[in-house]
Amino acid sequence: MTRAAVLGVDIGGTTTKAGIVGRDGSVVGRVQYPTDPSAASKGALAIVDELLERARRDDIEIEGIGVGAAGFVAGDTIIFSPNLVYDDPALAAAITTRTALPTVVDNDANAAVWGEKLFGSARGADDIALITLGTGMGSGFVVGGRLLRGHSGAAAELGHTVIDPSGPACPCGLKGCAEQFVSGNAIARMARDAAALDEGSSMVAFAGSIDAITAEHVARAARELDETARAVLRRAGLALGSVLSNVANLFDPEVVVLAGGVTRAGEAFLGAARDELVRMTGAQRRRPMRLDVSTLGDSVGVVGAAALVMEPA
Amino acid sequence: MTRAAVLGVDIGGTTTKAGIVGRDGSVVGRVQYPTDPSAASKGALAIVDELLERARRDDIEIEGIGVGAAGFVAGDTIIFSPNLVYDDPALAAAITTRTALPTVVDNDANAAVWGEKLFGSARGADDIALITLGTGMGSGFVVGGRLLRGHSGAAAELGHTVIDPSGPACPCGLKGCAEQFVSGNAIARMARDAAALDEGSSMVAFAGSIDAITAEHVARAARELDETARAVLRRAGLALGSVLSNVANLFDPEVVVLAGGVTRAGEAFLGAARDELVRMTGAQRRRPMRLDVSTLGDSVGVVGAAALVMEPA
Repeated sequence: MTRAAVLGVDIGGTTTKAGIVGRDGSVVGRVQYPTDPSAASKGALAIVDELLERARRDDIEIEGIGVGAAGFVAGDTIIFSPNLVYDDPALAAAITTRTALPTVVDNDANAAVWGEKLFGSARGADDIALITLGTGMGSGFVVGGRLLRGHSGAAAELGHTVIDPSGPACPCGLKGCAEQFVSGNAIARMARDAAALDEGSSMVAFAGSIDAITAEHVARAARELDETARAVLRRAGLALGSVLSNVANLFDPEVVVLAGGVTRAGEAFLGAARDELVRMTGAQRRRPMRLDVSTLGDSVGVVGAAALVMEPA
Repeated sequence: MTRAAVLGVDIGGTTTKAGIVGRDGSVVGRVQYPTDPSAASKGALAIVDELLERARRDDIEIEGIGVGAAGFVAGDTIIFSPNLVYDDPALAAAITTRTALPTVVDNDANAAVWGEKLFGSARGADDIALITLGTGMGSGFVVGGRLLRGHSGAAAELGHTVIDPSGPACPCGLKGCAEQFVSGNAIARMARDAAALDEGSSMVAFAGSIDAITAEHVARAARELDETARAVLRRAGLALGSVLSNVANLFDPEVVVLAGGVTRAGEAFLGAARDELVRMTGAQRRRPMRLDVSTLGDSVGVVGAAALVMEPA
């Protein structure tokens, strides 16, 4: 029997992931490759070819292709991406030309929040915020049941709202962006600064040297109760809590979903964020917001990209 | 000949304004009274009675009543207002019971942005931000052609996003809210601090004493090229520019409309805001945003409240 499914492709700054996604959100044939930062479109086309071949072999009918792409996307075309070069920015047209399948391209965080709405912990909600915390900080919002896109497709950049004008410079060109306090890169930077004053921290031992410390080393050291690592994660968590208060004041969502590798940093991080959010919403007498960690985990981008095809956002 | 129109009522923290608004957005019979902060609903009912009487006299058929109310509003009911007591929070029901007319109640900034969309400089746009700068700082957003309300009606509080964690305490319970840097109250506070170091500033002469300085005195002194006044307005304008960059990053609106008395503070304020916004959007290679001062002026709240009835938001 032929089953029907959709391809989901998630083009990230480091990795391009893809899979065959069933109507129930289940994923088969998941593959991933390093993203070629100078030719991200070519990589996406190759991964589509591979999965279409796999679908043919497994007798799965592919009805459409969804792509979530790191960068600003307007009308199926990638306008600008700070970390990637799309050799063909009109990616939806390129995929449809090659495959004759209906193709939707959107921003990766838009795809992810749409996936959370259709298949994740935000299922059924109409006002949703999703924050992805990986190397950087992405976000997507569902407002009144629809994706927030903005006039030119460049909305939903929570990571580049300025939350402290005296904060560090951000690659986006501004200073003190949220991303500089909450992302994996920010945690690594704060940890390196802290380790310079505490070379005995197990972060340094795990990483081999202060310069090699990543957010993963910080999380591992914090799990082993390294006080310097815990202080760094707590500081990032407090900043996330304050950003979540801003989200509450602007969007008043029913649920906020956190996704990305940094959500695995543990309670020193997530507990601080939750405590700060509760303190701030309490001070304002706001209704508490539901705060979840994504249950779609590492597949959120692939499932979300496919969700864009299954239900128009 | 009987003409058809709608009543618009704008309940502000200081003044309740109302008028008879035609289908073209024109206002007749405009009235205003001080808001009774302990009985805001009673005042609104009295003003409705007065305008219905006036409409009868002038042979105008009133088809409905729109109310914009300072505070959090969910489903026609006022949930909470920091500065007012609504003696009857279920204001829409109270007005309909009394008048037998369909009545819509919404947040005052939501009403204002809807008025700008139907009759103001944002006419025809589907992605709009409105910022009211009076004593405090309000905001309303149209996203994809619809009002941003949030899950519990408490969205669109741009004035209570934290933009500098080391900033002054805000009556909302938080610290460093945008309202503490950009509003009329903020300008007055910064001016009093500045005048303490420069008692010769004409702000002090205009106000009579340092403690009596208001944003109007600052604006007047700045027009007469008082350097201390201009520096205060410039500082508030730079903060507004930074807040507008956050608005661009989150909402990517086609147009931002500024309303409220502080927009009359002149170029020392608005020029600084515009320059800072252009600098920040330029650094991010964002498309420039249109920035307008409301053409509806002092009537934006009344026209907006009526607009809520004319076209469901």
